[in-house]
Amino acid sequence: MSTAATPKPSPELIFGTLISYQHAFALKAAVELDLFTAIAEGATDAASLAKRVKAAERGVRILADGMAIQGFLRKENGKYSLTQDAAIFLDKRSPAYMGGMAEFIVSEENIRNFSHFADCVRKGGTVSSIGDNSKPVDHRWVSFAKAMGSMAAPVAGALSQMVSANSSAEIKVLDIAAGHGMFGITVAKNNPRVQVTAVDWPAVLEVAKENAQKFGVADRYSVRPGSAFDTDLGSGYDYVFITNFLHHFDIPTNEKLLRRFHAALKPGGKAVTVEFVPDESRVTPPIAAAFSMVMLVNTDAGDAYTFAEYESMCRNAGFKSTVFEAPPDLPQRLVIAEK
Amino acid sequence: MSTAATPKPSPELIFGTLISYQHAFALKAAVELDLFTAIAEGATDAASLAKRVKAAERGVRILADGMAIQGFLRKENGKYSLTQDAAIFLDKRSPAYMGGMAEFIVSEENIRNFSHFADCVRKGGTVSSIGDNSKPVDHRWVSFAKAMGSMAAPVAGALSQMVSANSSAEIKVLDIAAGHGMFGITVAKNNPRVQVTAVDWPAVLEVAKENAQKFGVADRYSVRPGSAFDTDLGSGYDYVFITNFLHHFDIPTNEKLLRRFHAALKPGGKAVTVEFVPDESRVTPPIAAAFSMVMLVNTDAGDAYTFAEYESMCRNAGFKSTVFEAPPDLPQRLVIAEK
Repeated sequence: MSTAATPKPSPELIFGTLISYQHAFALKAAVELDLFTAIAEGATDAASLAKRVKAAERGVRILADGMAIQGFLRKENGKYSLTQDAAIFLDKRSPAYMGGMAEFIVSEENIRNFSHFADCVRKGGTVSSIGDNSKPVDHRWVSFAKAMGSMAAPVAGALSQMVSANSSAEIKVLDIAAGHGMFGITVAKNNPRVQVTAVDWPAVLEVAKENAQKFGVADRYSVRPGSAFDTDLGSGYDYVFITNFLHHFDIPTNEKLLRRFHAALKPGGKAVTVEFVPDESRVTPPIAAAFSMVMLVNTDAGDAYTFAEYESMCRNAGFKSTVFEAPPDLPQRLVIAEK
Repeated sequence: MSTAATPKPSPELIFGTLISYQHAFALKAAVELDLFTAIAEGATDAASLAKRVKAAERGVRILADGMAIQGFLRKENGKYSLTQDAAIFLDKRSPAYMGGMAEFIVSEENIRNFSHFADCVRKGGTVSSIGDNSKPVDHRWVSFAKAMGSMAAPVAGALSQMVSANSSAEIKVLDIAAGHGMFGITVAKNNPRVQVTAVDWPAVLEVAKENAQKFGVADRYSVRPGSAFDTDLGSGYDYVFITNFLHHFDIPTNEKLLRRFHAALKPGGKAVTVEFVPDESRVTPPIAAAFSMVMLVNTDAGDAYTFAEYESMCRNAGFKSTVFEAPPDLPQRLVIAEK
């Protein structure tokens, strides 16, 4: 089996994978202690950092070293400084700050569900009792809405471009399972012709409404609280945004949902699904493909669906045609189905 | 700040680090289900794998895809095969199998301690109640002894070479906190002149004695059950092996221990410490440097010490000279102090 090109066997990848959780927890702790902002504001050695973040010097030194090891800090002569990515995404004063997502991604609930991974494989789905996602789970989705808004910006930019190519005097957008609302809100902010209707559980919509206020689009933002499965969605929409939603359900459930969204669109309107979409192999690109693991442990029957699967679901739900867009540098992809 | 050479800002490393725990839990699940052995034995698609490992096909497909994403499997036309490293280290039939370490590294206890990382930083040490490591914690160390023996082979090879350069008719080795015992046992197996005395908690020594039997050195293997802090260690040793032990304690405690080991050596004898030893920067090499995080969350005052710190501890404990060896391709390094 061994050839000249075969690298020397090494357990390094195995060991590195098994200890990788340590870096996830460390980064979450650094965000919680706001270590990056403290360094950016001038506390650059362990002693002054400890004072600033109100922690023990030994603890801060080990944490900051961990952040340097993982590539979020530089360390020179005992002094820490932020890498470019840390300065942009982890300094709380930065407009692109996204430290908040640590709390959601490395949540107690996710960790608990992942710690039962083998049982989930045996069962073929989550072993937790809240895997069907058709009922409100406020603690999870309010937390999502609060934490993950900053992640929406790149995709929201792509959606804004698409919507702005539409020449109608008024553009009606239905934002399904809006969460933080930042997809619809960004599109409305970028285009004064846009009117957004957001659907989500009542507690979650409070977060979206706050964001609509904050970004100055509250007068073009209305809500329909309730379940995407049975709330009256209204009709005549130009676009339905279905962001990070269909992955929670099995294919028949998604076809039922897509039929409802089809009915809410005007003729020629578009259902735009934003998702982690792996290639047909289901093992590339890595981040999109690995998302199926999150669905295995957290849901009864969700998945990271391929484009072929989305195409078939949209066709079965009555859509005329479906195209696929992969904006550069985004982990997520767009599935655009036309009525 | 941006220059021609500055890469485009991207949250990819942040996101990848936060989700990294998912790969750790997935690999642990694959080991628990013995997925790699099943594939090696010919169950190469999701359906036959599901039957073989007694799990749901959906679960197995997602798990195996996860293993392919992370580089432990190849996937072609829906069929999985083992990469070279997986075949050598994750197929249970392989003599170099080290899947067992998943259970210890991704243990419930480690996960619980890491999930309190921010609190450990604030406190400067573990928030668990078993951080001082001077008393027996059988569930942890018997599990370590059972899981981690396979990891000892590369270092045990380096120790064997060192010991075999010794021309004495009888070579007495004291193996401190022997755990699985595989350092001393391997050295004895490779050299019939070696006599090993192992020190550890009684329950842990049962594992070491089983291994000594298994590897055919039981007649040259004796034990001294108890604490390295106060058990009678005997005297006249050529070598004391101190493997993965000193990292649990603070410097004054280590000096006290090293004085005891110094006393147990014959003149010219050597104390050989095997450890994750970071460079003076404490941020390279990554695996050794990151080990300080494990000590922060699991111990009251342990650390991944630098060579300068070990040199000073050994000198204060009465050793004549201390040298440092970094065998190629090993994550661990040797600190060799001569009496």
